[in-house]
Amino acid sequence: MKKLPFLLVFTSFLGFAQSSDEEQLKAIYHQSLTNSKCYSWLDYLSNTIGHRLSGSVGAEKAVQYTKAQMEASGTFDKVYLQEVMVPKWVRGEKESAYILDGKKKVAVPICALGGSVATPKKGILAEVVEVKSLKELETLGEAKLTGKIIFFNRPMNPENVQAFLSYRDAGDQRRSGAKESLKYGALGVIVRSLTFTLDDFPHTGNTNYGDVSIDKRIPACAISTNGANLLSQMLKQNPTLKFYFKQSCYQEADVLSHNVIGEIKGTSTPENIIVVGGHLDSWDLADGSHDDGAGCVQSMEVANIFKNIGYKPKNTIRVVLFMNEENGGRGGDKYQELAQKNNENHIFAMESDSGGFVPRGFSIEGTDANLAKISSFKNLFEPYFIHSFTAGHGGSDIEPLTSPKLVKAGLRPDSQRYFDYHHAGNDKFDAINKRELELGAATMTALIYLIDTHGI
Amino acid sequence: MKKLPFLLVFTSFLGFAQSSDEEQLKAIYHQSLTNSKCYSWLDYLSNTIGHRLSGSVGAEKAVQYTKAQMEASGTFDKVYLQEVMVPKWVRGEKESAYILDGKKKVAVPICALGGSVATPKKGILAEVVEVKSLKELETLGEAKLTGKIIFFNRPMNPENVQAFLSYRDAGDQRRSGAKESLKYGALGVIVRSLTFTLDDFPHTGNTNYGDVSIDKRIPACAISTNGANLLSQMLKQNPTLKFYFKQSCYQEADVLSHNVIGEIKGTSTPENIIVVGGHLDSWDLADGSHDDGAGCVQSMEVANIFKNIGYKPKNTIRVVLFMNEENGGRGGDKYQELAQKNNENHIFAMESDSGGFVPRGFSIEGTDANLAKISSFKNLFEPYFIHSFTAGHGGSDIEPLTSPKLVKAGLRPDSQRYFDYHHAGNDKFDAINKRELELGAATMTALIYLIDTHGI
Repeated sequence: MKKLPFLLVFTSFLGFAQSSDEEQLKAIYHQSLTNSKCYSWLDYLSNTIGHRLSGSVGAEKAVQYTKAQMEASGTFDKVYLQEVMVPKWVRGEKESAYILDGKKKVAVPICALGGSVATPKKGILAEVVEVKSLKELETLGEAKLTGKIIFFNRPMNPENVQAFLSYRDAGDQRRSGAKESLKYGALGVIVRSLTFTLDDFPHTGNTNYGDVSIDKRIPACAISTNGANLLSQMLKQNPTLKFYFKQSCYQEADVLSHNVIGEIKGTSTPENIIVVGGHLDSWDLADGSHDDGAGCVQSMEVANIFKNIGYKPKNTIRVVLFMNEENGGRGGDKYQELAQKNNENHIFAMESDSGGFVPRGFSIEGTDANLAKISSFKNLFEPYFIHSFTAGHGGSDIEPLTSPKLVKAGLRPDSQRYFDYHHAGNDKFDAINKRELELGAATMTALIYLIDTHGI
Repeated sequence: MKKLPFLLVFTSFLGFAQSSDEEQLKAIYHQSLTNSKCYSWLDYLSNTIGHRLSGSVGAEKAVQYTKAQMEASGTFDKVYLQEVMVPKWVRGEKESAYILDGKKKVAVPICALGGSVATPKKGILAEVVEVKSLKELETLGEAKLTGKIIFFNRPMNPENVQAFLSYRDAGDQRRSGAKESLKYGALGVIVRSLTFTLDDFPHTGNTNYGDVSIDKRIPACAISTNGANLLSQMLKQNPTLKFYFKQSCYQEADVLSHNVIGEIKGTSTPENIIVVGGHLDSWDLADGSHDDGAGCVQSMEVANIFKNIGYKPKNTIRVVLFMNEENGGRGGDKYQELAQKNNENHIFAMESDSGGFVPRGFSIEGTDANLAKISSFKNLFEPYFIHSFTAGHGGSDIEPLTSPKLVKAGLRPDSQRYFDYHHAGNDKFDAINKRELELGAATMTALIYLIDTHGI
């Protein structure tokens, strides 16, 4: 019985910690749902600034706007920019395409893939070979592919509950379709849009030519899923029909851009840094509200919520809006380069880059012990319907970041609707639900609070 | 050590049961995401038939369509209708309303609340008293309320993560605002729409006059949230401004309608009945895709998935599409009346009436032991991101149903976006995500499979 008093003290201390955490989470979610700024920030980024492709006027305006907002917030000890040279790819004139079946022309919605070269000025007109995989190119070989347009038409597999798995699996067609097809003398590439839905939006995204010289590159476009189904159906009727497309995209010289950083100095261990961020650049077909305006304003909201609940972090918190995730990843690389140069010690990095949908949990990149530690907070999150803590990738922008004991996490919102909008002309502010966005911000804030308080 | 062999056998038996359940759930979700009909059924209900207010042509068409679909499916042993007399409320001409501030007229979007009486033909023009609660009427009293239009303007509380709590709390204004206001000589009632969003859609829904005779009833309308904010703001500037509204809704005599029922006879205990359903009627401002076309087609899909995976239920399964949930509940009452008359034994009843959004779990209405039993299936659902099993209400249509050991459950989809569409002009098919709808159907099927197999 002698040890009981100690046990009681210890238990009641734990009880206090838990209940104090409960209270803090309650305050965090309350602030986010009643007093947040993230939705109006995103409104401005999306509806006033618009798209933010690296090197564009929009990207530069977004840098200035978010920096000014962070400065005006009174939340940060320091707001600053990190210079980073970024690639500048320009779409040029709106693309056009049609299926030519005998004398019948049927227009279909396409867009150039990011990084693609242009077609010749008069466009490309050629017969089409439909394939379902990169591997099929080998089987068909040069004899069947030379002089043709290759049409990659493997849909995203609907059977994965986690939509990102389907995206990853079908994504090789977009990422490598052009690079692989040109080896067989193909003239161009059409890729089925990476979305589950049947609609008329072509979805862009980067294609990668590797080290193929510019003069050998062939143009690549995405076709909407309805367009892809139509083309496939018409090819069955007439395998020698032709496809025409024209695009005038081009690459300019790299230009100067910036990561935007707001820093709250830690009260007890300022040398330990916690990063929370999203990427400020977006594709150019819409506002990039989900990808990744949402992640940027949620990251800014983390600091805003801390201010509103009067929480002073022990460790230094950095809100980082990375530039150029979509077509280069230069912002993430630059952040790491400078962190290393300055001998910084990062203990935790969180990224939100999966849309502003209702949050479900986090994927954790660290040791098993890190995952166990973070999962031990699970019961605190359950009142907010956050329940999924799994091992997995943190995020593209924080991928280059290294530090001896660094743990990374990615916010995992519900994934079902993400690819309805991803890289397409409908990734707009009206596709954002204010509460879902705010719940994501609160969930990010809650985990950062817990890690800042209890360590990792 | 002697007991070990038994333990091993027992464990491996459990292991087998668990793994066979795992396989069945995998098959269920797979079928739902790759081979379901619910989305196309809902497309027809929403886009070809349209609204299905009780007593309307649409409601009758929906009865015939779903009956024909169930018959054609080859899934059921029996498909039949249950006759039920339903109230017929008709909106009449489109409502109109404006704020009259001196000579300035500002039009605002309103709609009559369901069950409301009409205004006089020329409309009502009167001063407005803004209140935040029913209780405030008492405080103000007859002196301040007679001859006035009462404007109920308490917003839904954004701080609840569970949106239905906010709906329940703010809902008394819509449900009882007219009945309470007429006691003080008010001429009419305006109710702020029950939604979190700021937009221009008025949200209808039933108002209840209790036993007040028709000649004493006063007209009640919903105003869009933007309209409510504008009116409130203008009232602050000019408390004696006037509000005008006109509506020509009316109640006709009850008409004959139907519950639609498809039945699969149980293979071993056919006398035990499991019900799964939604309500076929909807409000009249849109298609009622979320409320509750979704619940109907998901319930039909349960039977379709069982057919596709070759599962023959032990107990009798009834898919029930209830009529008249929105403004009477007559279908649910009739179902119970006949169940009782026929001495039927219902063991489980599930309702889907919270929108076709991504499913999160179930609310369970039963004993603690029932909740524990159903919660014991939780680990089987986790791969599908279903995690919330809580005590709570099953659903309005299954509320009247009684049987000695009956357990009820309501599908609980994510609630954040439900009130963006609920009872409003934007509750349309384009607000439905195919995968979210299908995941809901799979989740319902999975729980019914588990209860049918393991008992409750």
